[in-house]
Amino acid sequence: MNYKINFNSTFANRGMGLENDINETNKYYNQYDIALIYKKPTPIRINQTDYKHMRITDGFFESPSTLDYNGVYKGKYIEFDAKETKSKTSFPINNIHKHQIEYIKKVLKQSGIVFLIVRFSSLDEDYLLNGKDLINFLSTNGRKSIPLDYFKKKCYKLEIRYAPRLDYLKIVDKYLL
Amino acid sequence: MNYKINFNSTFANRGMGLENDINETNKYYNQYDIALIYKKPTPIRINQTDYKHMRITDGFFESPSTLDYNGVYKGKYIEFDAKETKSKTSFPINNIHKHQIEYIKKVLKQSGIVFLIVRFSSLDEDYLLNGKDLINFLSTNGRKSIPLDYFKKKCYKLEIRYAPRLDYLKIVDKYLL
Repeated sequence: MNYKINFNSTFANRGMGLENDINETNKYYNQYDIALIYKKPTPIRINQTDYKHMRITDGFFESPSTLDYNGVYKGKYIEFDAKETKSKTSFPINNIHKHQIEYIKKVLKQSGIVFLIVRFSSLDEDYLLNGKDLINFLSTNGRKSIPLDYFKKKCYKLEIRYAPRLDYLKIVDKYLL
Repeated sequence: MNYKINFNSTFANRGMGLENDINETNKYYNQYDIALIYKKPTPIRINQTDYKHMRITDGFFESPSTLDYNGVYKGKYIEFDAKETKSKTSFPINNIHKHQIEYIKKVLKQSGIVFLIVRFSSLDEDYLLNGKDLINFLSTNGRKSIPLDYFKKKCYKLEIRYAPRLDYLKIVDKYLL
């Protein structure tokens, strides 16, 4: 595990998407012993293997039923997912799978810290949407999307910086711990 | 995610190995909202995909650099691995990969709960070895294995039961929280 960050390439990679920003941020947290947070490997269903050569010869990606990132920060369990939308007015709820919503409820029951990082890519705006707020919104609204206005009022805005790129633990520290 | 436990099959599966016992235990914890702990998917390096049919046509298993299980219990981060040995006298340290040892240190630094569940399969004995104790042992001993006697004196014995099969959270509650 080599977590040295090449700052030149880090800045050069700008605009490669939310997942890249989060991975860079997690590398930074790991390198400086701030937190230990990883993207989970995508689960793969394996149909056929060539045992002799230790190879997988037929498999496919399964859709994950949990969130993409988890780890530990100050002893606490953290889990989150990254979602992007091109919409300029709202975040469509069908971006979140039904089993992911059930899973968020389960993490909340275990007092885990759980949230979404939502990027409005056309607006260059990133928000941290707390899992509890999401569940509340879903249970009190019949809407198919969460308006940008809700994010502006109820969520936490994240700023892109040099390093760490997307310092979401600052928000966790301030509001979710 | 269907976590209904079939108690008949649960008992019938006895002796299918430590991993199976732990999976059954985690299903029980999940079903009764006691904890949310999963086996991580094995990371797979993909060499070739058939995009048209969304299939992986060449890939291989990578050796994990972290531990196999992680999750949340009472808000706390938990991570552990399961190790089996046929030896009746000691647990060979080469069962633990070097990068796993480094990783255990990192989880400890983040105040995560981290341990190994070690099965002496020839003796039908299971122990919970706290990560902190493991790191201490390694730094104060030149030995290539941890004697059974050390487990008897310093570790926590786990008992196989009906359900949950291997109630390791009882030990976590008592000694590691």
